[in-house]
Formats: sequence, C-alpha cells, structure tokens
Amino acid sequence: MTTSVRLALVGLGNVGRSFLELMVTKAPLLRERYDLELTLTGAADSSGAVMDAAGIDPIALREHKLRGGNAANFVRGVPGMSALKLAAQAPADVLLEASPVNLQTGQPGLDCVRRAIRRGMHVVLANKGPLVHAFGELESAAVAAGVGLAYSATVCGALPVVNIGRRDLAGCEIRTVRGIFNSTSNSILAAMARGGSYAEALRQAQLDGIAEADPTLDVEGWDTANKLVIIANSILRQPTTLADVQPVTGITGITPEDIRAAAAQGRVIKLVATATRPDPKGLANPSGLYRLSVQPEWLPADDFLASVNGWEMGIVFDTDIMGLQQFKVDERGPVPTAGAMLRDVITLVTAGNRKITP
Amino acid sequence: MTTSVRLALVGLGNVGRSFLELMVTKAPLLRERYDLELTLTGAADSSGAVMDAAGIDPIALREHKLRGGNAANFVRGVPGMSALKLAAQAPADVLLEASPVNLQTGQPGLDCVRRAIRRGMHVVLANKGPLVHAFGELESAAVAAGVGLAYSATVCGALPVVNIGRRDLAGCEIRTVRGIFNSTSNSILAAMARGGSYAEALRQAQLDGIAEADPTLDVEGWDTANKLVIIANSILRQPTTLADVQPVTGITGITPEDIRAAAAQGRVIKLVATATRPDPKGLANPSGLYRLSVQPEWLPADDFLASVNGWEMGIVFDTDIMGLQQFKVDERGPVPTAGAMLRDVITLVTAGNRKITP
Repeated sequence: MTTSVRLALVGLGNVGRSFLELMVTKAPLLRERYDLELTLTGAADSSGAVMDAAGIDPIALREHKLRGGNAANFVRGVPGMSALKLAAQAPADVLLEASPVNLQTGQPGLDCVRRAIRRGMHVVLANKGPLVHAFGELESAAVAAGVGLAYSATVCGALPVVNIGRRDLAGCEIRTVRGIFNSTSNSILAAMARGGSYAEALRQAQLDGIAEADPTLDVEGWDTANKLVIIANSILRQPTTLADVQPVTGITGITPEDIRAAAAQGRVIKLVATATRPDPKGLANPSGLYRLSVQPEWLPADDFLASVNGWEMGIVFDTDIMGLQQFKVDERGPVPTAGAMLRDVITLVTAGNRKITP
Repeated sequence: MTTSVRLALVGLGNVGRSFLELMVTKAPLLRERYDLELTLTGAADSSGAVMDAAGIDPIALREHKLRGGNAANFVRGVPGMSALKLAAQAPADVLLEASPVNLQTGQPGLDCVRRAIRRGMHVVLANKGPLVHAFGELESAAVAAGVGLAYSATVCGALPVVNIGRRDLAGCEIRTVRGIFNSTSNSILAAMARGGSYAEALRQAQLDGIAEADPTLDVEGWDTANKLVIIANSILRQPTTLADVQPVTGITGITPEDIRAAAAQGRVIKLVATATRPDPKGLANPSGLYRLSVQPEWLPADDFLASVNGWEMGIVFDTDIMGLQQFKVDERGPVPTAGAMLRDVITLVTAGNRKITP
C-alpha cells in the first residue's frame, strides 16, 4: 500500500531547491524502500506563493528559480501571497520550512510553523529561527495537536545530532556536549593555519561559495550558538534561548599569530560549543543547569574535535551509561541538509502516523 | 499518564545483570522523562526461570546471581523451566534476549524470539544469534504481528550504529560501510603495538576481563562478522548470512613484526569489517550486491578507523547525499550494552504503541 504525502515548501534558496531535486531523483528509492510517494502541493519564497492540489513539478520550479524566476511568476504563482497564507491554506500534510534564519524574531517562519501545527500538519524545519525563539511552545503545540515536529536538519545538516541525542541516548544523563557546528568558521580557521590572515581566508571562503556575503552569523559564533540552543532544548531538555549562551565569541579576533602560537604548543584553534554540567545538582551547581558557551579553544592534537578538519562538523557526547560517543561528518553544499529534511519526512510518515492519507 | 511496561529477561550474564541494575537506578529518570514504569515479571538463565506477575525485585535477583545463585533457586524459581517456556508464558509486554550468542544455530534465543513475536510481544535483543540466523524471518514476523523488533544493542553496544544506518541515513544510497566492531581484538592489537606477542596481549586482556576464556569468536573475526551480517540485513537491506562474509580473517596470525613493519610505513593494523558496492548495478557489479569481508588492514594514520583506539569501536558510512559520516565510541564493560537495551525499550514503548498497557 503506497503512502502518498503532500508537501508544502517554504523557502526556495539553496536548501529548498536541493530538496525539490531530491523529490525527483529519490522518487524510485522512496517507492521501493518505503512505499512512499511525495507530491509538492505548495511552495513559497519572498515574492509570493504557488499552490496546486494536483501537484507542482519540482524540477520545473527549481529550474525556474535557477533562471532567476520566483514563486510569484511561476505557473499559477500568486505575487505577494505570504508563506503564512500558504501554511494556512495549502492542501498539504507536511510543511517544510527552509527559509533564511531570522535571529531577531524567528519570523516569518515562526508564525508559519504555529499555523501549520494548528491545522494538524506535520512540520519539518531546516530553519533554526523558529526553534531558537520558541522551542518549548512549538514542541507543546505539536504534542497537543498530535503532529510531528522534526528538525534534524537544523544542527549539522545530515549528521543526525538531534536524533542521536534525543533517541539514541535515551535513558542517559549527558555530562558534557562539545562540538564544532559551523563549517564556514572551521574552514576559515583551517585556511589561516595554512597561512594568511583572517580577511584573506574569509575572502577565499566567499569566492569558494562557503561563506555568505554577510558572514556575521557564521564567524561571530551565532550560527553555532543557535545550534547549541536547539541541542540544549531538545537533547538536554533545558529551556534555553540565545541569551543563555555566554559567552558567544566568534573567530574574527583570531590572528595568524594565535594560530602559530597554538601550533607551537601542538594545539589547534577551533570554534567550540560547550554544554557542561560538571556536578549535577551538587554543591557546586545547585541549579543543576548546563552552562552553555561558544568560543575559540586551543585544543590538544589528540582531542577528537581537533580532528574535525576544514569542511567537517563534529560532536562529542560524554554520558553516564553509554560511554563517550564521538561523531563527525564531511558534507558539502546544501544537499545533505535537504537530505536531512527528506529523512525527517520519511521518519514522520513511516512511523505509522494515521494523519497521512493512505 | 504513566506507561507501565512488563519485561521478561532471558539471560542473566553480565549484560542481563547490568540491565537489572539499570531498571532500578534509572527508574526516577524514566518516570520523570518518559512517564515510564518498568516491571520485571519474568527472568531465565540456563538453570531455570522465574515468573511473577506482581513483579520480581531486579536488585535481589542480581545480587542472588552475584552470590552464585541462579534463576532456578531464586524465590519462586522453577528449576529446568526453559527460556522458551518463559517466552511463551510470561505475563510481559516485552521480551529481552541477552543470552550468549550461538553461532551454529542461534538457539535457544531464536525460538524464544519467534515465540514472543507470535504472542504479540515486543522483542529487544542483545544476543546477535537469532538475527544472524533468521533476520528476514524475524523482521517479517514482527511486521505481521504488529510488534517491535529492536536490536540496537547487538552492534557496538551503545553506539547507535543500527539506528543511524536505518533511520538517519533513510533516503541515502550507502556506498561503503567500514568499521571496527570488536573491542577485544582492537585492544589486543593496541597492546601488541606497545610491545609483546599476540599470546601475551591475549593473556593480559583475559586478566583484565576484556577477553573471554575462549576468545575464538572475538579474535577469529566471527563477532565482527556477526555484526556485519546484521548491518547488511538491516541497514543495507541485503539478505545475508555468515556464509556471505568472505573472507573472515581474525588477528591470530598478526605478529609483532607485522605491526612494526606497518608502523615503519606510518600505518596501524586494525581488524576491519567492510561492505562495499563500488558500482551499484553497473557493468562491474551486475548483481548490485555489496561485497562483505572481515580482515586485518594496514591503515594509514589519517584514516578515521586508525584513530579508533584500544577500547574503542567505530564505523564510517560513505553515502550519496549525506556525506561521509564517521562515528566512534569509548565504552567499557556490559553497562553500555544494557543501556542500549534500555534505549530500545524506551523507543518501542514511547512510539505511541497501543499494545502496551497504559
């Protein structure tokens, strides 16, 4: 029996367009392996939206965007129709949110997610903004509505950090989480280690398409902090916002001299996110809370995170009953993040959920 | 609303006894985090079995075993009552199978699992035997019966290899899997690298309680091959038995000279399991099948698996759309494997399954 699932996609940037491509290239595998058929019934970008219960051709939409078009001037596109309106009206089972992160308010993604959950749709996020601003609210709303809220794409793309932490470390107390979550910063530090200033390394990363034109989120540590906030809320079960991460220090102050001085001691400089609770609810830590920080660290060469090279991201969980678990990924471009959204769709609809039209 | 789950445990060795301990030490966390209450209603070892719908005290049973007692001479114990009879009669929702692996037939675990599934019980395995012998049969039977069959403890203990491969790499084509799955062999090789013969390293590992009195399964590569068979069936979806793994070569032929010669080339010798399909269904590989092998390899120092040290186990997945994912764990003793069984119980009963008494 084939499960047919209708998707509405908000955000047609790199990740959104890669997802459109995967919908087509992975269709045979989805049919064979999961008896699953995906149909795109809605899509929105900042120009407007398009809805069609009969299905939108993902490849045609992707190519339209690549040629400089947008949702508003696509077939049946409605200029000015907001993502929120799409979330409210699309004939879809799952809302996919892949619009750019808004660090200040989480909008407009946040309201889209709220609306979709209220309608009884599952939600899959690649956009961290809504979670960073309203994790607890959205999780409670999803439970109350009986829908799935999945966001494995928001932390390290295809590396299943959230899934491992929530599901596979179930039953554990996690003592410490440490990670390298931002490949732009990591590759800039690697380039500086090979010689050259921060400015030169940044410019090269921008030329290579790794760094954004405005790299502030990445290099000032905010992208890393966003991911740590999601980890704290979801895995560590500690209600957390960005203000709870202190300090958030990026890599813009790192000099070639720092890197050389570290190397002379056999160390490498990495931008490390840390959550630590050395003495759970003990005398030294009466709140029992994790302390959260993002800052450059001088790591000894035998630290696992020192082996997380240029393009890679990685994480270390130190647990009470499941040992020390260390993970890293070498992934490039937007496809792995789109792949993580696809994984979330598969997980939601193959978990026997009755809300999906059979 | 508290979910109350009744467990029957087959096998009271190191892993089984650790699970009994976790049932008690983790009870507050299970209640707080998952609203979950576990009750032991049956247990068996090779001497006999004990059943009690009112609940068996896990700590009392564990201490009884540690004092040299067994299931037969525990309170209400029935000498000679088989694990199979327990599986058939225990007033339980989940059967936990943690008895020793039987490489020849998978018995008696295999029949216990068959019987439990037929009764509509969930099954959680730490024992690889039943899966290695009858993976496809058991998976189909569980689907037909509408019960869960979980076995994340069977491959690398607490490292969630099976869960990552099946759930988190959903939608991927996996090109290659490579791993170090046997910590006994790995620690013997590490000891030999520090100096000393195979025989000396083995004896020390036995004194340290790492290696079994009969280490054949570990050092001849069969334990690694068992895990590869489970990975091939579950993650690669390729029906596989032990006979399909060729060669299975262990570490007993490795000499200190080999290790020194490798080191002189900047390499380390590791016992590596490999599943590879270089050209899926292409000209060079018309069957499209993965080739499976277990053998010592001379790894360059920058190979991730070369960094999987003494006690550790690790795995590398090379995928089409989710990059290169690399995982390792430093875990010791039986507790992490028991923790993995607990994780499976939590996953099964918190996935909204209606078969569990609410």
